[in-house]
Amino acid sequence: MVDEFASIGHWTAGRQEADWQRKQGVVIGIGDDAAVVEAPAGSTDSWQWVLAVDTMVETVHFNDGTMTESDIGYKALAANVSDIAAMGGIPRHALVSVSVPPAWTPERMRRLYDGIYACAERYGVAIIGGDTTSSPQHLVVAVTVVGTVEAGRALRRSGAKPGDAVFLTGPVGMSGAGLHALLAADCGGGAGVGAAAQPASADAAAAAGHGFAVPACAADDAQASGASAPSRAEQAASGVPEALVRAHRRPAPSVRAGRLLLSRGTCTSLNDVSDGLASEAWEIAQASSVRLVLRDRALPRSGALVSYASQVQGDALEWMLFGGEDYVLLGTIDAADAEAAKAEFAKEGLPFYLIGEVEAGDPEVMLVTAGNGGGSSSERRRPIPKRGFNHFA
Amino acid sequence: MVDEFASIGHWTAGRQEADWQRKQGVVIGIGDDAAVVEAPAGSTDSWQWVLAVDTMVETVHFNDGTMTESDIGYKALAANVSDIAAMGGIPRHALVSVSVPPAWTPERMRRLYDGIYACAERYGVAIIGGDTTSSPQHLVVAVTVVGTVEAGRALRRSGAKPGDAVFLTGPVGMSGAGLHALLAADCGGGAGVGAAAQPASADAAAAAGHGFAVPACAADDAQASGASAPSRAEQAASGVPEALVRAHRRPAPSVRAGRLLLSRGTCTSLNDVSDGLASEAWEIAQASSVRLVLRDRALPRSGALVSYASQVQGDALEWMLFGGEDYVLLGTIDAADAEAAKAEFAKEGLPFYLIGEVEAGDPEVMLVTAGNGGGSSSERRRPIPKRGFNHFA
Repeated sequence: MVDEFASIGHWTAGRQEADWQRKQGVVIGIGDDAAVVEAPAGSTDSWQWVLAVDTMVETVHFNDGTMTESDIGYKALAANVSDIAAMGGIPRHALVSVSVPPAWTPERMRRLYDGIYACAERYGVAIIGGDTTSSPQHLVVAVTVVGTVEAGRALRRSGAKPGDAVFLTGPVGMSGAGLHALLAADCGGGAGVGAAAQPASADAAAAAGHGFAVPACAADDAQASGASAPSRAEQAASGVPEALVRAHRRPAPSVRAGRLLLSRGTCTSLNDVSDGLASEAWEIAQASSVRLVLRDRALPRSGALVSYASQVQGDALEWMLFGGEDYVLLGTIDAADAEAAKAEFAKEGLPFYLIGEVEAGDPEVMLVTAGNGGGSSSERRRPIPKRGFNHFA
Repeated sequence: MVDEFASIGHWTAGRQEADWQRKQGVVIGIGDDAAVVEAPAGSTDSWQWVLAVDTMVETVHFNDGTMTESDIGYKALAANVSDIAAMGGIPRHALVSVSVPPAWTPERMRRLYDGIYACAERYGVAIIGGDTTSSPQHLVVAVTVVGTVEAGRALRRSGAKPGDAVFLTGPVGMSGAGLHALLAADCGGGAGVGAAAQPASADAAAAAGHGFAVPACAADDAQASGASAPSRAEQAASGVPEALVRAHRRPAPSVRAGRLLLSRGTCTSLNDVSDGLASEAWEIAQASSVRLVLRDRALPRSGALVSYASQVQGDALEWMLFGGEDYVLLGTIDAADAEAAKAEFAKEGLPFYLIGEVEAGDPEVMLVTAGNGGGSSSERRRPIPKRGFNHFA
């Protein structure tokens, strides 16, 4: 890359209007040593600031087959927006650090920033700063998001109480299944063929997620032609159900849901599902010193997931519990307000699934399944292990 | 690395007291989806927030010979603290994203965080969040620092006016020379030998700074024994003047200087010297639409730099102009206040060098050198090119 591309300014110039940024509280944007921001004008609320950072690494979180460049940019910001949503906050500003290897041409970088700005526009986030360095071999994108929350109102993981209801703000497992399908399709055989040769399981999907091995065929393609890299992701997607592709590549953080939950005042704990439902439920259980009991039949099952799992002889539940990168919210709410909250979500056109209860007890997560006989007397409980999407596994 | 090391919590637990963090405005620290912070309590000032991110990449910004693990951590945070200083702000909080390759054992990671926390303690920065991912091959550290500044008072690059004096808050060129010496020493021959075979120049030092080629001998050492990696940096340092090693590995951001300058109210522009004096002077000249005239004889020359340059037949001035990573402040100040500011700095025990003047004219940077005859009549001016420490060169 030549000099002009070395500056964050090159990738960000002209993308967001100065007037618009000013309204978002940006005092000094990109172009000085640091950005300066302030709380929204005209608000009588007292604000606190919410901050999170998330990093995506080539070959660890994505490769040329699983994501297009703009998907990578979109998701890098979305993952952070989801962290702000999980505190009940409003995402406002972001700083983007990109380490760029030689294979990432200016054209590919432009598409990466297209995705970052598409997500920024969707969630009203002003890009206020960043850093661009070279990288010897792999792209690394680290995004820091800054948001605001009403003082003292941030929703933590630690407030779940026995008797509370457990909820989800969207379906889980689709991103993990989407990754599995994209990896199989990227190997040239389409989802069915690839998966038939290598039966699906949550373990495989989870393993695929951390430093996943690029199938030999894909690696060969990449060597044969660097220019074909973008189309590899498009080609892989053509063999995979669109809902699963979208879930994996363009997650939709639950910002409105987080704000609704904060304003109700009855939400006792909240987490975003980045590492899988099981792992996030464990985090709430441990932070709150309670047992979370999830009901198998109450878990939201997407048709696309169930259908794909059946097609590849996989287990939809495994993906739902351990798949990760869903970026919906998992939380607990005062049981007396659960149905009213559900009704308000419905009125706003937002999904809200009541999936279980909080019990007193040592921190753990249980799954209740109906026995053969049906009815509550034949219900069975089994402990859900604390594992999920772990980049070091 | 095993699971327990995958969490940012592992590296940060017990490092900073909760009470101390609370006093720094930390409402929610590490352990939830995002951190929550607020402005310092008990202050009647109205604050704005200052944010910057800087990234260090293995083989681009450092290798096993040029920096120890704790130096890498220290410098990654210090580079960001310097950006806050360059706005006249107070650094308060930081988020740390680390992408960890297999060669970075838990012991090496612990030392990295030792360095981060040493710098955090030095500058009163609370570590409030982060992200730990794996990396296929090279360590990447991206640090975001959050600070505060009195509303509307941040010091920009763009306010320099003709007639202003130009100043530096410390010597420049030592870090670049230190890098040159460490690379030469790391090659086994000591600074003198390595440099004799490869005469020093700012170009070489600058080139060395961006994706520098690891000398073959060093690479061999690394292959021979991963365990010897930490001692390579120690061994390299043993052959290099201590002041140059320290300048390169443990930069000392001018936070107090930035605060003094803000409080005087006469500082018209400010930049930190990360990419070299020439490059930063150009940034001020362009942002302010003025000409900066620097006086060769007024530039602060460290004895260690001059002595090393002479030893390796290098040019100290080249390192001073183009070396980079000095992390002192370059700025302009109302000429009427220049001497008074210098006196106040002296009273505080802080260096302050008046190195030139601002002139009306197209944006450019000139260097004035005394001619053979001495006296102002024989002075010569030459333009200084806009180049510096560029990771893409």
